Amino acid sequence: MKILGITIGDPNGIGPEVVVKAIFSLKGSKKFIPVIIGNKSVITKAQQISKTPFKIRCVDNIDVYHKDWESIQLIHINKPDKIIKGIATKESGFASVQYIKKAIELAKTGIIHGIVTAPICKEAINKSGFHWEGHTEMLAELTMSSNYAMVFKGGPLMIILATIHKPLKAVPNLITKQVLIKVIKLAKKTCDMFRIKKPKIAVAGLNPHAGENGLFGDEEINIIKPAILTCRHEGINVSGPYPPDTVFHMAYKRKFDIVVCMYHDQGLIPLKMIAFDKGVNITVGLPFIRTSPDHGTAYDIAWKGIANPSSMIEAIKTASRLIIK
Amino acid sequence: MKILGITIGDPNGIGPEVVVKAIFSLKGSKKFIPVIIGNKSVITKAQQISKTPFKIRCVDNIDVYHKDWESIQLIHINKPDKIIKGIATKESGFASVQYIKKAIELAKTGIIHGIVTAPICKEAINKSGFHWEGHTEMLAELTMSSNYAMVFKGGPLMIILATIHKPLKAVPNLITKQVLIKVIKLAKKTCDMFRIKKPKIAVAGLNPHAGENGLFGDEEINIIKPAILTCRHEGINVSGPYPPDTVFHMAYKRKFDIVVCMYHDQGLIPLKMIAFDKGVNITVGLPFIRTSPDHGTAYDIAWKGIANPSSMIEAIKTASRLIIK
Repeated sequence: MKILGITIGDPNGIGPEVVVKAIFSLKGSKKFIPVIIGNKSVITKAQQISKTPFKIRCVDNIDVYHKDWESIQLIHINKPDKIIKGIATKESGFASVQYIKKAIELAKTGIIHGIVTAPICKEAINKSGFHWEGHTEMLAELTMSSNYAMVFKGGPLMIILATIHKPLKAVPNLITKQVLIKVIKLAKKTCDMFRIKKPKIAVAGLNPHAGENGLFGDEEINIIKPAILTCRHEGINVSGPYPPDTVFHMAYKRKFDIVVCMYHDQGLIPLKMIAFDKGVNITVGLPFIRTSPDHGTAYDIAWKGIANPSSMIEAIKTASRLIIK
Repeated sequence: MKILGITIGDPNGIGPEVVVKAIFSLKGSKKFIPVIIGNKSVITKAQQISKTPFKIRCVDNIDVYHKDWESIQLIHINKPDKIIKGIATKESGFASVQYIKKAIELAKTGIIHGIVTAPICKEAINKSGFHWEGHTEMLAELTMSSNYAMVFKGGPLMIILATIHKPLKAVPNLITKQVLIKVIKLAKKTCDMFRIKKPKIAVAGLNPHAGENGLFGDEEINIIKPAILTCRHEGINVSGPYPPDTVFHMAYKRKFDIVVCMYHDQGLIPLKMIAFDKGVNITVGLPFIRTSPDHGTAYDIAWKGIANPSSMIEAIKTASRLIIK
């Protein structure tokens, strides 16, 4: 049985609550055991407000032979000193980063087989002196990964992003043949991770109607199509570029296994239309499996006991599916 | 009872077929009577392949007192000479334009009260010597309308576009405070046309996470928010900018009546996810009501009798709803 490390995310947000709710809901799974990486006091409080009475056992080193769900191992990090509900603080940002650093250390040495991360807050991270664009970029930098991409899965739809947290005006210049070839190959790798046989990969255009033969933009002709052809020559079953406003519906109807998207909202808008609260984020290209829910810290409802753990449950299930080989 | 003019679109595409199927399906409506604007021979053939046996009566001038569905009036245009199934030709493009010009003439004089347009083909239109970016831009130019916008409605979702058929890289420069104020007001006008009381208007951001406080783009801070504030000061119930990947789900859950979108695919992607084949396009800001289905000429399935008239039926129903005041 494999071990999944679960970081509790920003302690002032809904992370700790959805983590304990998800673990309580998945208790007894034969596919994995969880190890929580976070603060003991925060987790205890999250269990109290969410009424999820399972045993926690603080450990310095994970007992890899302890395979039952009688008690859940916790790698205790002694931050933050206190919870300030629903507020981005220097302390909550600092604590979030420590949890992730510890998880990376454990995953790189092979003690845990994958990481599921609860949401962090960019503002809090910034306050604590770190400046990553997001969780994914942080994991990539800390593991020195350059060949990675963000994948989202929700219902029958799976998407992969060629650019992530960039201003829209910066996107067209970031879409190069080299980048697209890299992302198409990562799309193939993602499908392989999900053991999809003969995966069908679609590439969305950048412009309306995929440029309408150059009338509304030429990136499809000059960049996207050549990248697709290069990958086809290498034996990848990839097609496109398709009009962005129809390709996601086609994928939803299972004509494609994954859609390569040019920018953040091109992929996230359709995904959240059909899988709001249920989407899972997967980082492909890290040295280990990493998934997360597709929501944020939701400070407005933090520590009220009302956070929905569905996306976190899906994230853990997805990670447990991917680590079993 | 009001009269709706229905142009049959590109004769080589699915337009004529979906027009006769839709009219056959709506036969006997008490809300409107249709007048077809197109070619007699094309319509007769469309009736044959789609098995929609209703009577057609060619007229030079519409009999506005003829209010029953016993026979459908047709304004006959003597183009094209023949149908070339599924191909964009100079003749099909030329004919499409003549149908629309006739419809505009009738609408401007008040003989018909609204227009429903079947799809045309940009390539065919170009071949015939005309160079509009799309159907909407053509109608705007021919009616000398500058204060117009494209609206789409599908299920509970209604969206309005601030920019239409533009390359993505041109979009950020086209989003000005002036343009947004115009479109927010047109959004309000659209809601009024649908007799929505106290409409709630949302504005989507341009950048991922609506810019995340300037981290991923500053258009939200410098342009979008000021435009929203100006409109709020004028009494319009408008809010935002919202993260593009969540606002459409909120609108779908009826938190908003209409979403102002920065670019084509931002609005069309979510709409087609939830209302594929059922979406309706409405042009707001023309001197008359105009709707159309949200699909194209679908040359690949033209003249096979298998075209789905759902979107055309919705377009006609929507127009009939809007012209009754």
